[in-house]
Amino acid sequence: MTRQQRPLAEEKVFKDPVHKYIYVQDQTIWNLINTKELQRLRRIRQLGTSYLTFHGAEHSRFSHSLGVYEITRKIISQFERSGYADWPKEEKLVSLCAALLHDIGHGPFSHSIEEVFDTHHEDWTCRILLEDTEVNAVLREFDPSFPERIAAVIRKTYHQPIVISLVSSQMDADRMDYLLRDAYYTGVNYGTFDLDRILRVLRPHQGRIVVKESGMHAVEDYLMSRYQMYWQVYFHPVTRSSEIILRQIFRRAKELYGGGYSFQWIIEPLRQLLEGTLNVDGYLSLDEALVQTAFTQWTYEPDELLSDLCKRFLHRKLYKYVAMDNADDELWEEIREQFIAIGLNPDYHLEIDFPYDMPYDVYRPGTRAVENEKPPILLLDNEDRLSEISAKSDIIRSITGLHQGKYHLYYPEEPVRESAHKLKPHIREFFGFM
Amino acid sequence: MTRQQRPLAEEKVFKDPVHKYIYVQDQTIWNLINTKELQRLRRIRQLGTSYLTFHGAEHSRFSHSLGVYEITRKIISQFERSGYADWPKEEKLVSLCAALLHDIGHGPFSHSIEEVFDTHHEDWTCRILLEDTEVNAVLREFDPSFPERIAAVIRKTYHQPIVISLVSSQMDADRMDYLLRDAYYTGVNYGTFDLDRILRVLRPHQGRIVVKESGMHAVEDYLMSRYQMYWQVYFHPVTRSSEIILRQIFRRAKELYGGGYSFQWIIEPLRQLLEGTLNVDGYLSLDEALVQTAFTQWTYEPDELLSDLCKRFLHRKLYKYVAMDNADDELWEEIREQFIAIGLNPDYHLEIDFPYDMPYDVYRPGTRAVENEKPPILLLDNEDRLSEISAKSDIIRSITGLHQGKYHLYYPEEPVRESAHKLKPHIREFFGFM
Amino acid sequence: MTRQQRPLAEEKVFKDPVHKYIYVQDQTIWNLINTKELQRLRRIRQLGTSYLTFHGAEHSRFSHSLGVYEITRKIISQFERSGYADWPKEEKLVSLCAALLHDIGHGPFSHSIEEVFDTHHEDWTCRILLEDTEVNAVLREFDPSFPERIAAVIRKTYHQPIVISLVSSQMDADRMDYLLRDAYYTGVNYGTFDLDRILRVLRPHQGRIVVKESGMHAVEDYLMSRYQMYWQVYFHPVTRSSEIILRQIFRRAKELYGGGYSFQWIIEPLRQLLEGTLNVDGYLSLDEALVQTAFTQWTYEPDELLSDLCKRFLHRKLYKYVAMDNADDELWEEIREQFIAIGLNPDYHLEIDFPYDMPYDVYRPGTRAVENEKPPILLLDNEDRLSEISAKSDIIRSITGLHQGKYHLYYPEEPVRESAHKLKPHIREFFGFM
Amino acid sequence: MTRQQRPLAEEKVFKDPVHKYIYVQDQTIWNLINTKELQRLRRIRQLGTSYLTFHGAEHSRFSHSLGVYEITRKIISQFERSGYADWPKEEKLVSLCAALLHDIGHGPFSHSIEEVFDTHHEDWTCRILLEDTEVNAVLREFDPSFPERIAAVIRKTYHQPIVISLVSSQMDADRMDYLLRDAYYTGVNYGTFDLDRILRVLRPHQGRIVVKESGMHAVEDYLMSRYQMYWQVYFHPVTRSSEIILRQIFRRAKELYGGGYSFQWIIEPLRQLLEGTLNVDGYLSLDEALVQTAFTQWTYEPDELLSDLCKRFLHRKLYKYVAMDNADDELWEEIREQFIAIGLNPDYHLEIDFPYDMPYDVYRPGTRAVENEKPPILLLDNEDRLSEISAKSDIIRSITGLHQGKYHLYYPEEPVRESAHKLKPHIREFFGFM
Repeated sequence: MTRQQRPLAEEKVFKDPVHKYIYVQDQTIWNLINTKELQRLRRIRQLGTSYLTFHGAEHSRFSHSLGVYEITRKIISQFERSGYADWPKEEKLVSLCAALLHDIGHGPFSHSIEEVFDTHHEDWTCRILLEDTEVNAVLREFDPSFPERIAAVIRKTYHQPIVISLVSSQMDADRMDYLLRDAYYTGVNYGTFDLDRILRVLRPHQGRIVVKESGMHAVEDYLMSRYQMYWQVYFHPVTRSSEIILRQIFRRAKELYGGGYSFQWIIEPLRQLLEGTLNVDGYLSLDEALVQTAFTQWTYEPDELLSDLCKRFLHRKLYKYVAMDNADDELWEEIREQFIAIGLNPDYHLEIDFPYDMPYDVYRPGTRAVENEKPPILLLDNEDRLSEISAKSDIIRSITGLHQGKYHLYYPEEPVRESAHKLKPHIREFFGFM
Repeated sequence: MTRQQRPLAEEKVFKDPVHKYIYVQDQTIWNLINTKELQRLRRIRQLGTSYLTFHGAEHSRFSHSLGVYEITRKIISQFERSGYADWPKEEKLVSLCAALLHDIGHGPFSHSIEEVFDTHHEDWTCRILLEDTEVNAVLREFDPSFPERIAAVIRKTYHQPIVISLVSSQMDADRMDYLLRDAYYTGVNYGTFDLDRILRVLRPHQGRIVVKESGMHAVEDYLMSRYQMYWQVYFHPVTRSSEIILRQIFRRAKELYGGGYSFQWIIEPLRQLLEGTLNVDGYLSLDEALVQTAFTQWTYEPDELLSDLCKRFLHRKLYKYVAMDNADDELWEEIREQFIAIGLNPDYHLEIDFPYDMPYDVYRPGTRAVENEKPPILLLDNEDRLSEISAKSDIIRSITGLHQGKYHLYYPEEPVRESAHKLKPHIREFFGFM
Repeated sequence: MTRQQRPLAEEKVFKDPVHKYIYVQDQTIWNLINTKELQRLRRIRQLGTSYLTFHGAEHSRFSHSLGVYEITRKIISQFERSGYADWPKEEKLVSLCAALLHDIGHGPFSHSIEEVFDTHHEDWTCRILLEDTEVNAVLREFDPSFPERIAAVIRKTYHQPIVISLVSSQMDADRMDYLLRDAYYTGVNYGTFDLDRILRVLRPHQGRIVVKESGMHAVEDYLMSRYQMYWQVYFHPVTRSSEIILRQIFRRAKELYGGGYSFQWIIEPLRQLLEGTLNVDGYLSLDEALVQTAFTQWTYEPDELLSDLCKRFLHRKLYKYVAMDNADDELWEEIREQFIAIGLNPDYHLEIDFPYDMPYDVYRPGTRAVENEKPPILLLDNEDRLSEISAKSDIIRSITGLHQGKYHLYYPEEPVRESAHKLKPHIREFFGFM
Repeated sequence: MTRQQRPLAEEKVFKDPVHKYIYVQDQTIWNLINTKELQRLRRIRQLGTSYLTFHGAEHSRFSHSLGVYEITRKIISQFERSGYADWPKEEKLVSLCAALLHDIGHGPFSHSIEEVFDTHHEDWTCRILLEDTEVNAVLREFDPSFPERIAAVIRKTYHQPIVISLVSSQMDADRMDYLLRDAYYTGVNYGTFDLDRILRVLRPHQGRIVVKESGMHAVEDYLMSRYQMYWQVYFHPVTRSSEIILRQIFRRAKELYGGGYSFQWIIEPLRQLLEGTLNVDGYLSLDEALVQTAFTQWTYEPDELLSDLCKRFLHRKLYKYVAMDNADDELWEEIREQFIAIGLNPDYHLEIDFPYDMPYDVYRPGTRAVENEKPPILLLDNEDRLSEISAKSDIIRSITGLHQGKYHLYYPEEPVRESAHKLKPHIREFFGFM
């Protein structure tokens, strides 16, 4: 049993473009927001490199974290007002903290760094919760069991599955906030859905959040928004190109460091990252400001590949792309050979990308058996029967598990263009040089 | 006479949350957007430290520059469609370039840096236009006279005053974009006004942009938005507090550098800034990523004052403030003395701020005589008579030259609170410690 | 003391464009909405003839009544959540009913009908509350004293002045809804202000609703919206022209009826209106459908004046207008004479209008002494002192009691144009015929 | 070949909530808007009885007609700016007139009246274009062939199929406006899609309007909006109920009239409607004001059925509904018998409704062969190949020809409830009476 929540003498309010206002009523939440670990999320963009495609998408994970907290607060507040028996009242503060902190372990341009250095932001989230940090101190001050309990929510092992469901399911506070927020900041209207309506049809039910059947169309609309956002924004080929460049910068730096290359400019946490010896303190000082500063300095490095990639990222001279009907292995091999022939390095100057490999899924009505699968969306009818939504909705069935992505081949345009005359005719034609 | 503008084979489009779309039709504009100098503005926030008050305000000067360009494009396009005789058609591209580039000389957190190091972003804008940069190359490629002509618009010496009026007057494309954009990103609705309506009532008239009298209420609404934005957003005391911290970091670093202090961590362009030897290249590598990285590193500096200020900025432990009825010199002296008595440094731990000193004015119907004064807003009636708007509008007359700001005294809360018992009673009471 | 409120088993929800949703939680409110007297408001437009100027402004008083109810519900719900001692909890349902019913006595095109037939919608509201109606039955069913109590609120004699203040003051739920709603439906953005913010700064205080001083700028914004709406929408000269036509139709019909004219087409409640013998039943069957139908039929009446005016209204052939510097009596007399000379009837073909005579006031910080004066807006500072807002705000002081309207002279264009050559030269010039 | 279009000296502007402004540049368009036939559309609601479900949906066909005109104007203006060879420039004014006038033949509550009296609004549109009306005069004044040409567009026999395609296809200006407008006025956000984006990807191509393939996702979004609007708004069971009542009023009146019943109150055009002798003049005087006035008067008719139905409509005491799994003929017969047994008239007190029978289709990629089928949406790829959109889009394929509607049985609740004890147990249970 937890201690009584300490309410703030006066409710605090943040102005927020997506939710209009964000309301803070607990001292613990207020203290968490003021920790340096949460403030650091102001220096990490919510959408990674997407700002290079959608210039408005410069919003931070800090804004998003407040938004996830606010949606969670609204859901719980509605559950409490309605007095639903299946909502465990004593879990309110754990849920709010988990919502606010769920992204605290994100580093700069997480997806790329995680791929190259094989780290996982959930692990860092748990370490920040459990090791010697301001966040840990605030949580322990409230209740010594809180750091571990919130880590359990993040790891999805918490004994109250409904709390996990709030922050991590096919229709959780996280996704609802990021769709609305990313739509707002990019300026596309695809991500807009009726949040108020959805909040009204959510019900706690036997350890899960389910949806009243009468809200099915609102959920369809939410899933269609998600579908559109993936194809219009998250998988945009220009964004993919900038992520490729980013990943190659990190790969090159790692390769150079491993090979004993002596960087003209380096900074401690970055050295630890390349070396694989990062601890929590080091990790927390890694932010996007530091990464961009390193890239600026590395434009002066003697290693031409590294220097060129950094310039490409900073000055937005990204790789171009051509669509491939599918992953044609033969063509792929041939292009690699031709690239070598014209003096390019196919390991860095060529990449095939298929967006579906991204850790997103439009909607998959999975079971919890498969690891990391999000619980599906369940509809609750008037007679208390549950059904998975794609069994009821034609629309959702139609987008379930869709594999619509195209293969794209990314490459630097100028050097290929300059040596185009040396390429075999059908390769030249493939790249569109006549 | 300029050369023929080279239109793009296909119009380019940027998605923009404020204007929905931004349309690029000229090769020169496209090339300018792709220069590294303009891309660098992605790493400089439009509203400086305001994101510490309004977490949504993370938008960059790059976004704003595109917005100013777009509004200018729309104004000119309407002038051309309507065939107004007073619009000099050959000035279109100069105007568009000046609109796009008018902020190119902004550095990181400009207001603070300019104040401490006595530099001016307009000067840097002109140097970037005229010295060896990608921007200069793109402009010269179009017309060798272009760099100088655009610099003349920035310096307000251009021979066609109407072009200056477009980018710098009491109702220019710059202000119209920033009000709408800042309102959108902060989430306040004060800054919203009817841009479409205003664009429809603008007229080129004898070397100036004037407003059809029937549009007076729309202009009132625009000026009221401005008034509200200043008091709600731009002069927000929390933002002022963060600017004070920022300025003091720079002042302290400059003082230390001047005194021969050996920084444990420094980076070249920052050294040049402290030394006063920045050239264009160095200036261009100064962005907010670099400044934030420096602050992160300086939290480890042995100089406690510098280290403390940097932590305050990064972790948002800002100075608190109390209102003062006016700048009471005696009280001020007394507080300084008491601060010294409790071991604080009043040069860094105490600051009086009066927002009206900021380089903003809600609206001042000045004449061009006064240096740097923005041309006033003129109404054109049906009989072609001009009148300055505050002569016609009671509302605008009422806000003209309003001095509504309050004096605020800023200070670090914890050390003052800890030694509060040592302060004289009336000083203690002034700070609200009982 | 009232009986316990009967909550609905399940909250009812209306989709509303302005407030997103309108929530009904009490059986009594639900029953009131379903009375025929409230449903009748669907056939009465909120903005009278404004739809002839702003085609979107076709919304009904029914929509507005729901909106006023919803704002009142939100205010009270915030008072209850915050547990303010000055809010009399037992007045909740009276307040909600008064909010919902405050416009129940409005007839078709009220302003015009009231002027011509000297009736008052507040009187009809009280009669509908107190006589034999469905509304009366629903209220009595809840509590026999309710009809009289709500009538007292309407008459501003209720013993709890705070309830009156909710539905009738310078910043009541009525005005807040109509500004937002009229702005939404006309499509102008002048009427937009931050309702959420205002709701958060309202406080019950010694029998009044006052505003926390920190909310002053939000109130300024609200009053500026009002100012703009009056000049852009409510006083729009085209709307004034349509109201003049409307009034003249009624005046002509009344005159004809009084003179014994035998209408080819008449309908009972209209006959009673002309005769001055309307009772509640007759009044309730008078809606805008009936008035428009009558006008359609009257286009066939032998009385040419009546027939012409009806055609003008239905087919939107309104009177034109010219501005007059002030009410120049001499000119006025001369024009009347000339109109007679060219065969027009100045009683019907000529009207001077000065919008300030309308029963609107932008903001007047009156005292309750003057009859029908709305209580002013009071700011509550941190030390519980009250001050009238125009004493604190320069902006509001500047618009207080502004008399900005222009005199306009309205007339039918075609007949005057046709006989323009017969007019004296300076009169001809006055009307713009050369 | 048509005459030169006469531009207005000064562009006219209407404020519109959906498109912000509507621009009129041609004298002929201006004159058409001022005809009494177009002004009459102000007295006919765009969404028929939907205002009884969504109280905001009080907008008129006049507003919609301006909107369709404006979208058409924008499409053509983009075609002209881009100089597409496949757009026949001389068809501009015909297209604009057809867009503005396409709904001129709509009567009050068209769907119901057309069903009961077997009339067709397209026929009335053509008669209004071709017979002696103000619209006809304005068109003829511009070009004697215009009335016939525009009628040909309405009848889909015009020699330039691209003009037909603009105003009548699966993605025409009509549908684009009504989705946006109905969404705006009801307040649901389902109907929102990116109109600007769609306008940018439309291309004239071999006599049709097609869509650039890169715009496929925007079209998906548009079709999903349509899908959602149908299920959330157009097929809403409460709206269906009100339409049933309306239809039964007309059926009853027709039946009574046919049987020689002498109405206590009747009005000429209504008599002609019942008699089947309406001419254009009579039809034009039939508006919703007249219909509602008639219903008000008929509440006093001695025929109880008619009187009861009219009260139900005016006071919104609609029929309740229960879902049926399918059209169970046996159950249906049994219910009819039981209704007779308890003294109800199943011809008026019972109706099965299946929304899919409505003249709407979410999307059907038909061929022009089938009469009245709308041309499908075609995508144009980079190599000028066309494909029907459902061949490319999984999403659209999934909603093509979906039959998702449910059978609902509508009935008056009170009389059935009162006699519930007389019903057979399974019928009682079917209606939910225990």
